[in-house]
Amino acid sequence: MSTTARRARALPIAVTMGDPSGVGPEIVLRRAADGGLDGCVVFGDLAVLRHGAELLGVEVALEAVTDPSSQPDRAIAVVDLGLLGAADHRPGRLDAASGAAARQYVVSATRAALAGTVAAVVTMPMNKEATQLSDPTFVGHTELIAAECGVERYSMMLAAGELAVTHVSTHVSLREAIERVTTQRVSDVIVLTHETLQRFVLRPRIAVCGLNPHAGEHGLFGAEDAEQIVPAIELARAAGIDASGPHPADTVFHQAVNGHLYDAIVCMYHDQGHTPMKLLAFEEGVNITIGLPIVRTSVDHGTAFDIAWKGVAFTASFDHALAWARKLAG
Amino acid sequence: MSTTARRARALPIAVTMGDPSGVGPEIVLRRAADGGLDGCVVFGDLAVLRHGAELLGVEVALEAVTDPSSQPDRAIAVVDLGLLGAADHRPGRLDAASGAAARQYVVSATRAALAGTVAAVVTMPMNKEATQLSDPTFVGHTELIAAECGVERYSMMLAAGELAVTHVSTHVSLREAIERVTTQRVSDVIVLTHETLQRFVLRPRIAVCGLNPHAGEHGLFGAEDAEQIVPAIELARAAGIDASGPHPADTVFHQAVNGHLYDAIVCMYHDQGHTPMKLLAFEEGVNITIGLPIVRTSVDHGTAFDIAWKGVAFTASFDHALAWARKLAG
Repeated sequence: MSTTARRARALPIAVTMGDPSGVGPEIVLRRAADGGLDGCVVFGDLAVLRHGAELLGVEVALEAVTDPSSQPDRAIAVVDLGLLGAADHRPGRLDAASGAAARQYVVSATRAALAGTVAAVVTMPMNKEATQLSDPTFVGHTELIAAECGVERYSMMLAAGELAVTHVSTHVSLREAIERVTTQRVSDVIVLTHETLQRFVLRPRIAVCGLNPHAGEHGLFGAEDAEQIVPAIELARAAGIDASGPHPADTVFHQAVNGHLYDAIVCMYHDQGHTPMKLLAFEEGVNITIGLPIVRTSVDHGTAFDIAWKGVAFTASFDHALAWARKLAG
Repeated sequence: MSTTARRARALPIAVTMGDPSGVGPEIVLRRAADGGLDGCVVFGDLAVLRHGAELLGVEVALEAVTDPSSQPDRAIAVVDLGLLGAADHRPGRLDAASGAAARQYVVSATRAALAGTVAAVVTMPMNKEATQLSDPTFVGHTELIAAECGVERYSMMLAAGELAVTHVSTHVSLREAIERVTTQRVSDVIVLTHETLQRFVLRPRIAVCGLNPHAGEHGLFGAEDAEQIVPAIELARAAGIDASGPHPADTVFHQAVNGHLYDAIVCMYHDQGHTPMKLLAFEEGVNITIGLPIVRTSVDHGTAFDIAWKGVAFTASFDHALAWARKLAG
């Protein structure tokens, strides 16, 4: 189906409800009750959602659909996987069946996006430990989606306000993260960052962080900045990308946020990007997987079993994830 | 001399003017002209300061003193090292004689603090490259002061607003920084942090960062958090220190700044502490050396040759460094 045809049909955004024990379906229900889910289709278990609405005391009209692209008139569409009944709902508890169900919601929504029946996928949190109880090979939410898409070259983008950061590596030890700072990988992430930003910025300005303090200070503190990162930036520039650096990590965030010098920052490891972004916008952060053939955004928080189903979980990250999905789906 | 006797004499704060080519003496002169240097004694070259005042077009009464603790009535006291004349002043230029002179201002002020003729030392920036032209063994400003004090166990504290961060290592490669995360060193830095904060907080709450993403996530991403950092925190707690962690770096800054849960954060490497702190307060940051027998604070910026002597360098960091020196000197 062409992009034009898809737009004409106004495809909905798929929202996976996440692990039933956690804050995911709670946030879905609370936003659905407020009208915050218009134009969405939820992938999950209808029985759990109905049980959850009772728990929360919210009134939400839900309707099962078989075609994800169909939108009921006065109800939220739910692709009902039918995996769990109301009696299987374990609010706040780590549960094998819930972890397995959460995995299936994601697989199903990803396949719908690949088939072109939804415009994008917004994911609510899974619980790694819960899902590993039934699937010991489960590494992570993003890895699962990438595998479904048959993609190996992707990256995590965190977005908040006007700024986006991407990562050369994420959930690996700092020692391993250093090993992954190779010209090939840094170059790949710069290109993926550029391609994603180009969907809404004419000529994205990309700052690339150094790995070492002061970006190595001319080789005084480590060689990776000069040996691995500089060539990657040169490759990107030769390809017409406005990439600069390597910049010292401790000043580039200030320059991007307060000086408005960059649209995105490519970070060398998890905390280099996550620490300043969570300080800037703890509740508003959005996680975007770049490099996939589909649009996928995610809330930037976990299942939070300790506060789940009490009506207190913040919904801002979901609202921003949905807004970004719409923006990227065009 | 006892602390009581020193207080009674209201000892001045020593301010080293920094590399004459850079923004240091410019900021000294601009603040002196505004009354921002009351109760201070400048360690530097009087001829350069007078030449600089002409360059900037500011009116400042300066008076050479031989006893650093003496305070002239209507002029700023200057301990005149007599190393450079007006003709030797090279605004904005990397210069061997200026680099060597900057080193001597620091040595002289440190000795005055050790001798008890000044209450504290506030340092303006040196230029490492310039000083290395005459002293190839020069490693850094802080290392020089520590060596003069005969101290090996110290750490860099960055302070901004209500929050202070300290570092297990600073100017080394990230690979080397990982090697320095040992129980002994982490424990030392927790103790130094506690001792410094105790000067103004009754029971300091200290958060200790993890090294790896999610503080290692139970050993999934690296072993250092459990093997090196946890025992250091246990040692500190056994000694009655309110230390907690290891906390994931990407959430602990938010918790400290927005949740007011901690007075200080112990960081495992340079960028872990510097990146969020410079984002929080780029111009207001203060650098404090902890573990010395003297009080030493510093501006948190460099010589900035590109903008020096143009009257545009920001002075907020100096004002805060001076305020912290007074606070710590009691």
